[in-house]
Amino acid sequence: MKTTRAFLGWAALFVLGVTIFVPGVRGDEGMWLFTDPPRKLLKAKYGFEPTAEWLVHLQRACMRFNNGGSGSFVSPDGLVMTNHHVAAGAIQKLSTAKNDMLVSGYYAKTRDKELKCHDLELNVLMSIEDVTERVNGAVKPGSTPEEASKARRAVMNTIEKESFDKTGLRSDVVTLYNGGLYHLYRYKKYTDVRLVFAPEQAIAYFGGDADNFEYPRYDLDVTFFRVYEDGKPAKTKDYLKWSPAGPAEGELVFVAGNPGHTCRLNTPDHLKFLRDLVFPYQLDEIRRREVMLNIFSERLEENARRARGDLLRYCNGRKARLGILAGLQDPAVMERKIREWAEFGTAVHQYLMAQEAAQRTPKRPSDAPKSPRLDPECLNAGAEVIQALEEWKKIYRRHHLLEEGGAFNSMLYAKAITLVRLAVEKEKPNAQRLREYRDSNLASLKQELFSEAPIYKDLETAKLTDSLGMFLEQVGADSKLAKGVLRGKSPAARAAELVGGTRLDDVAFRRELAAGGKEAIAASDDPMIVFARWLDPDARAVRKEYETKVEEPMNQAYAKLARARFAVLGKEAYPDATFTLRLAYGTVKGYRWPMPGGSFDQLGKEIPPWTTMGGAFDYAAAHGDKPPFRLPKIWVDRKDHLDLKTPMNFVSTIDIIGGNSGSPLVNREGQIVGLVFDGNAQSLVWDFIFDDVAGRAVSVHSDALLEALRNVYQAEELVEEIEKARK
Amino acid sequence: MKTTRAFLGWAALFVLGVTIFVPGVRGDEGMWLFTDPPRKLLKAKYGFEPTAEWLVHLQRACMRFNNGGSGSFVSPDGLVMTNHHVAAGAIQKLSTAKNDMLVSGYYAKTRDKELKCHDLELNVLMSIEDVTERVNGAVKPGSTPEEASKARRAVMNTIEKESFDKTGLRSDVVTLYNGGLYHLYRYKKYTDVRLVFAPEQAIAYFGGDADNFEYPRYDLDVTFFRVYEDGKPAKTKDYLKWSPAGPAEGELVFVAGNPGHTCRLNTPDHLKFLRDLVFPYQLDEIRRREVMLNIFSERLEENARRARGDLLRYCNGRKARLGILAGLQDPAVMERKIREWAEFGTAVHQYLMAQEAAQRTPKRPSDAPKSPRLDPECLNAGAEVIQALEEWKKIYRRHHLLEEGGAFNSMLYAKAITLVRLAVEKEKPNAQRLREYRDSNLASLKQELFSEAPIYKDLETAKLTDSLGMFLEQVGADSKLAKGVLRGKSPAARAAELVGGTRLDDVAFRRELAAGGKEAIAASDDPMIVFARWLDPDARAVRKEYETKVEEPMNQAYAKLARARFAVLGKEAYPDATFTLRLAYGTVKGYRWPMPGGSFDQLGKEIPPWTTMGGAFDYAAAHGDKPPFRLPKIWVDRKDHLDLKTPMNFVSTIDIIGGNSGSPLVNREGQIVGLVFDGNAQSLVWDFIFDDVAGRAVSVHSDALLEALRNVYQAEELVEEIEKARK
Repeated sequence: MKTTRAFLGWAALFVLGVTIFVPGVRGDEGMWLFTDPPRKLLKAKYGFEPTAEWLVHLQRACMRFNNGGSGSFVSPDGLVMTNHHVAAGAIQKLSTAKNDMLVSGYYAKTRDKELKCHDLELNVLMSIEDVTERVNGAVKPGSTPEEASKARRAVMNTIEKESFDKTGLRSDVVTLYNGGLYHLYRYKKYTDVRLVFAPEQAIAYFGGDADNFEYPRYDLDVTFFRVYEDGKPAKTKDYLKWSPAGPAEGELVFVAGNPGHTCRLNTPDHLKFLRDLVFPYQLDEIRRREVMLNIFSERLEENARRARGDLLRYCNGRKARLGILAGLQDPAVMERKIREWAEFGTAVHQYLMAQEAAQRTPKRPSDAPKSPRLDPECLNAGAEVIQALEEWKKIYRRHHLLEEGGAFNSMLYAKAITLVRLAVEKEKPNAQRLREYRDSNLASLKQELFSEAPIYKDLETAKLTDSLGMFLEQVGADSKLAKGVLRGKSPAARAAELVGGTRLDDVAFRRELAAGGKEAIAASDDPMIVFARWLDPDARAVRKEYETKVEEPMNQAYAKLARARFAVLGKEAYPDATFTLRLAYGTVKGYRWPMPGGSFDQLGKEIPPWTTMGGAFDYAAAHGDKPPFRLPKIWVDRKDHLDLKTPMNFVSTIDIIGGNSGSPLVNREGQIVGLVFDGNAQSLVWDFIFDDVAGRAVSVHSDALLEALRNVYQAEELVEEIEKARK
Repeated sequence: MKTTRAFLGWAALFVLGVTIFVPGVRGDEGMWLFTDPPRKLLKAKYGFEPTAEWLVHLQRACMRFNNGGSGSFVSPDGLVMTNHHVAAGAIQKLSTAKNDMLVSGYYAKTRDKELKCHDLELNVLMSIEDVTERVNGAVKPGSTPEEASKARRAVMNTIEKESFDKTGLRSDVVTLYNGGLYHLYRYKKYTDVRLVFAPEQAIAYFGGDADNFEYPRYDLDVTFFRVYEDGKPAKTKDYLKWSPAGPAEGELVFVAGNPGHTCRLNTPDHLKFLRDLVFPYQLDEIRRREVMLNIFSERLEENARRARGDLLRYCNGRKARLGILAGLQDPAVMERKIREWAEFGTAVHQYLMAQEAAQRTPKRPSDAPKSPRLDPECLNAGAEVIQALEEWKKIYRRHHLLEEGGAFNSMLYAKAITLVRLAVEKEKPNAQRLREYRDSNLASLKQELFSEAPIYKDLETAKLTDSLGMFLEQVGADSKLAKGVLRGKSPAARAAELVGGTRLDDVAFRRELAAGGKEAIAASDDPMIVFARWLDPDARAVRKEYETKVEEPMNQAYAKLARARFAVLGKEAYPDATFTLRLAYGTVKGYRWPMPGGSFDQLGKEIPPWTTMGGAFDYAAAHGDKPPFRLPKIWVDRKDHLDLKTPMNFVSTIDIIGGNSGSPLVNREGQIVGLVFDGNAQSLVWDFIFDDVAGRAVSVHSDALLEALRNVYQAEELVEEIEKARK
């Protein structure tokens, strides 16, 4: 990395001729805070001015799925719409060897048939409060990174606890702009979530991994749930109505959802760190697990059913990361990031010079003191990020293996370490606990810990064997740590011993251990608990190292950059995605296939914005009706009842990312026109850079949803509820 | 590695109490040279004494497939039997989108229907000559490794050239015992090889990747070819006859074939190098390519057909390496290797002390001079291996990426670099050329270079894109080398440019370039040639570094160890596998499932030696008749015509490894009783250690072969030829 630093370090720019810095965003870029929507841009480009009511209604009609997706209310009786692939984990946990609802789909004609999910939690954002000053105020000037990290964690835990005690709402302090702002988000939480309708995975994920992140598409990627309170359907005042006609080409449309993670504000050095270390490492691990699960799955159909959820996640994560990495490895893309970073540096430099000049000689109006005042130390931020990355590099693998569970790919191990830590952490004052054990999060943590979802010991053994093998490869089979973990056994034998011997697959046993607290954990001879207990000090040590040497210095550096960004750009910027609610906008628009690659035949082809339901049948036929291109039997049987011209999927220029799955697409009237379920391959670079030349969000059309419910599945009750809500 | 060296270094053993060293082999261990069969062991254990005729007949009735397998003649008219998976590459190259013979199988009822393969070469070993003295004599004492390597290469090229000029036979100097012996092997070469019979891959590879390296099995993994000379079926005097009854349980049986590679004589440090670096690295690469080809294949059936050959190879290689690595990661296994190494060191030390004592005071008979005289410098060999490994570690990735083509996973690149080097090398004297361009190998090299086998540009682009991405990850996207290779483009764009622009997929163009020699290559503006020309100096540089700093010092060290082994053990040892003809023996024998792991239900289960043809139908039914457990339609249709009690597959304790695929299994009379096609999971550690507790070779039963040909495929002509030859 050394060769690039001189160029990237802003110091160098002081001697360069200064270019004019054009701030702002590209095309319809942006994942905006609901407290700071892009009013100027929307007005200027589309003549649209969202009212406060419009915003708050949309905000409260949407929700976050705790397992990593988004959704919205579509009736006043708690009916929730999301993607099938967001719901797939919950559906799998409800399935059995004899009744695999991922394959067969499900429809509860009446409410008593709605199936309660094991461990879903939905969060509806009710209010937002800026707590930046309080959080920053808790960190004393001159603190060491360790003290700063501790103080910040403490004040965040305290703010959340106070808010929860006051309102009874789930309260999260959210770090925005990598530490530039801290917001307190209060959520209404739903934990009684029941399955209403799911199509067959064969149509929800039509085209499978081959078509994931591709377009044109023909997927009915939808599932309906209903949230309950006190055993009754919840009354949900804020819900979205169906649009009468769906979107027109070129129409302005919005997405309200929870984009999970982006790194657009990362420095070029940080992006190179992702390119050269993080993504290759993650991809090697994902491919390894994918291959391992394929081997497990091929043996028996029941194995395949058990592994399906994990496998889908890995395939999806692999394809997404491959797309991002391809972008990072594209010199043209990286050059743009470097240029933008240099331009930003120049602008900051100009700002500081003007600020200094104004202080010295405030004579002319153009020399008026700059506001806000910017601390020149922000010029060191780039170098501070590099320093933190170098520390990260040293502990990257160890941190992932021990603290992120990379070495112990097992639900049983995850339960064990949670139980071991819960016993210790809950005896500490709230402010001093590890973040995930803070009071305000305990209910959510326990819901997952005590989930009734089945755990399969054969699958667990295969997963743990493989990850212990990976662990040995990475820490060295002769290392002290490896010998401590393996205890003189091979990975396979050690995994069999731990998984075979533990009783943690029994929920009652987990509840008993948790209730017994520290003494019960200390006295337990359950092999997985014994193991987690033994490992915990090492895992905590590397976590502490990560938090104090990497996370905290990095946050501090990025907070400086964020303040510089505010000073130079004002708030006409949006923070990186944080799996919290955001507003994005764009238009319905086709594109031209831009990339050379495996698909010579696609090169330069014009891709229209829509596909049709009839197209799905043609597409299946063109692939010999073989999986993953085989339509479910009911679709073939009911083909004659369908209006084949109904639009099926469509693309738009809206800025989305993983986590937005299941978000509603609405028009100016706030009516549903679609359901986001994917981005195309060209959108994958949006992880770190937005570009709408060919990047597109992919949605199910609102008409296709109703047409399929009505004429394929004959789900009259569900259609009626949606239709009634529409009025 | 440092912590273990003191223990492993033999120096330490001089101060330890000396234990008694038990030389020799375990159970039916051994891949023996035909010039040095284990006469004593066979006589002592089985009362069998192979005659010279028995040996030479078997030797000349067997052959090596140049693409990595073995086979045998089974009629006097050049009929060859091997595995379907050895033949799969050749069958794929004969297939088209409309006629996929891997799926449909093939049978030539008459000779004019036999299909000529594109680039198969079969080698029949005709004679063996020891040339150790001449090879070693060419290396002057006190040579640098570079001089030694050059001198050795020169004398080997010369010996081969002389032999070829004299006999017209393909002549290879084979390095045995890592340099302890050099043998000149002369082969009769067959290049007109025609496809006679192949079953459907669905039965040849029944159970697919899931059952690969597993047992029980039900595979008909066979293919028949016929070799031609001058357009007529070759007359093959030495061929194997079918046994009347197949093998009995416990019967002594032999395998004559070409085991590819083992590393049983490696020092423990060397094995740890494989465990910690080589296997993890190779597995990451294989999984990466496997996933990439799966993505490519899922898109279209024709894609799947094009990628199938590569995919099978990767799946097979992945599963084999996983098994070997699991063994290397098993502390019990590694401890045995370390103990054996220490015992060997003790024995060498005792030998040297006795040798020295005898020189000092040759008084008593027990102090008679030891023979052969052993140079005490052999005690340094372990440390020299470590030194070479440390050099290897430094260049491991670069050598793989540039010289082994890891960065350029493309047949078109392979053709380009071969053409570029051929032009340079053939102008040099034979003795000075890179090994593969020596005169005696040129015909084989050109057969592959000018093969008419189709090259698919879409597949090539996908492969090259992926491997260029891997290359960037490993050398760093900002490195000078990466920038030189990518030329400012993304991996996808660069791959599309190189593959899209080259004409090397046209055989005529390749022939033209080769004929044009140095000038034609220098003048070419074909982008792949331009690229290979640009890269060649870097690739040659790392190759030279590897040869002089790693290969040559390692060979010298292992040659010392080999001499020590001969001195201490005599020739009752066998060299590591070198993809040359070996004789192995053992008995037909079941086993008990020993390993915990994913298969709890198998634990401790008794596995009988046989399966039956009827069992195949039951097994398919138990897996819902779904691929890879679906029998071909013809099997279902012809089920009633089969004797379902016919043995299908069986296991034996014979010591085999990859490369033995397709080897005949014969009884004491030299009659065929089976066809080796696999080892079970427990045999995979045989790569570096033999153990017959549960490790087994897996074969197709000779009765099953005839029963299927006769009653499933009704291949009367083929059966008649085999039956006639039997008499």
